[in-house]
Amino acid sequence: MTPRYEIIGVVGLPEIRTGDDLGRLIVLGTAAQATPLRDGDLLVVSQKIVSKSEGRVVRLADVTPSTAARAMARELGKDPRLVELILGESRRVVRMDKGVLLVETHHGWICANGGVDQSNVDLDAASLLPEDPDRSAQLLRERVHGLTGMDVPVIVSDTFGRPWREGLTNVAIGVAGLQPIRSYIGVRDPAGHTLQATLLALADELAGAAEPVMGKLSRIPVTIVRGLAFERAEQTSKALLRDPSRDLFR
Amino acid sequence: MTPRYEIIGVVGLPEIRTGDDLGRLIVLGTAAQATPLRDGDLLVVSQKIVSKSEGRVVRLADVTPSTAARAMARELGKDPRLVELILGESRRVVRMDKGVLLVETHHGWICANGGVDQSNVDLDAASLLPEDPDRSAQLLRERVHGLTGMDVPVIVSDTFGRPWREGLTNVAIGVAGLQPIRSYIGVRDPAGHTLQATLLALADELAGAAEPVMGKLSRIPVTIVRGLAFERAEQTSKALLRDPSRDLFR
Repeated sequence: MTPRYEIIGVVGLPEIRTGDDLGRLIVLGTAAQATPLRDGDLLVVSQKIVSKSEGRVVRLADVTPSTAARAMARELGKDPRLVELILGESRRVVRMDKGVLLVETHHGWICANGGVDQSNVDLDAASLLPEDPDRSAQLLRERVHGLTGMDVPVIVSDTFGRPWREGLTNVAIGVAGLQPIRSYIGVRDPAGHTLQATLLALADELAGAAEPVMGKLSRIPVTIVRGLAFERAEQTSKALLRDPSRDLFR
Repeated sequence: MTPRYEIIGVVGLPEIRTGDDLGRLIVLGTAAQATPLRDGDLLVVSQKIVSKSEGRVVRLADVTPSTAARAMARELGKDPRLVELILGESRRVVRMDKGVLLVETHHGWICANGGVDQSNVDLDAASLLPEDPDRSAQLLRERVHGLTGMDVPVIVSDTFGRPWREGLTNVAIGVAGLQPIRSYIGVRDPAGHTLQATLLALADELAGAAEPVMGKLSRIPVTIVRGLAFERAEQTSKALLRDPSRDLFR
């Protein structure tokens, strides 16, 4: 049997607003385009629509930057109100250089601008990451289960940069129902080597796989991953956070 | 129309040896499993079989470690012959800590162990990255074109770690026939924002998408990416190397 899987974009979702029942809209959307969810599917959902449904969009006019935010903003050439929002989302500043403000978010993610982003929101607004993307993923999973009876794991994704390599990739910032890491530790390969440190970040690879269909402009904030064998687990995205003791770049 | 694409594993390839005609084996393999290549397909090919076909496998018994390699090996708890091979593949050592030897390869990739790897080779051997993975990708592309008349872009991939996030992801280390980066710079999103720094690392996302099918143990070193709209270009993986002047983590 040929191992294969498919990435299917969910088209036709409406513009998402605070309080929208995202799980229901996704279930309706997949049914409307004749790709109803099936057992064994996973969902990759863009952070942006999760944040919108949870009201995590802020009007810049309502933001009063602190003195520290103003000073950093001058150095970075950024809007001080954005810097204020970024600092509010952050546990610490990792680097501030070359116009980039790299922080560790309250969730533990290290990313530019703490996930504060102005794309695909109103011109005078900015979106923040969901307060707890794992909880967002779990609530979506539960809502889809309630509507369809199926346990469809959910990955909430965002595009992050990374050192050394050009370009962003889509990664998982929230996970529910899926083992996000595949471990080969202690397994023997066909040649007889015992694999020692081999952990694969499956949830990140699937978020990345979804991105070419989601795009930035195409208003496809949800994709179905269909046909892939994966391990179900009550795990969260925390499994994708590297333990600081094993990280060379804190 | 639903935007969708498929990742299809190429099964049944033989164990690859030095001098094997990899392009021909792939074309035969896809035909044998009734998924012959089509116009619009891309190929993701594991570095390991490219290296094997190019003879980039070294017997450890043939390696004489230098004094420096011996000293580093003691500190790292590694086989000094492996350290010797790693240093031979490297332009510089980026970090040596916590048992990890992170280097910049002659290609410019920053990765653990310079791509020197013992999995899926004989017990007393190690594989090196292809000398020029972009050239390897281009030669495969040309060979497939010669056999089928189709221009099938090729990504040569390897699994790399990254700071801050747990687990490896598969990334592109060689590219031919594909624009590896999608740029949205200067494009307006639906809300009217002009996107400023948005480059997406498409080739890395596709390498990652292929990995869950390739696995580490399943002997599926080649996948077809089918049905995706992408931009053809005479580009290489060099587009994925971040310019040091824009890198905060050199």
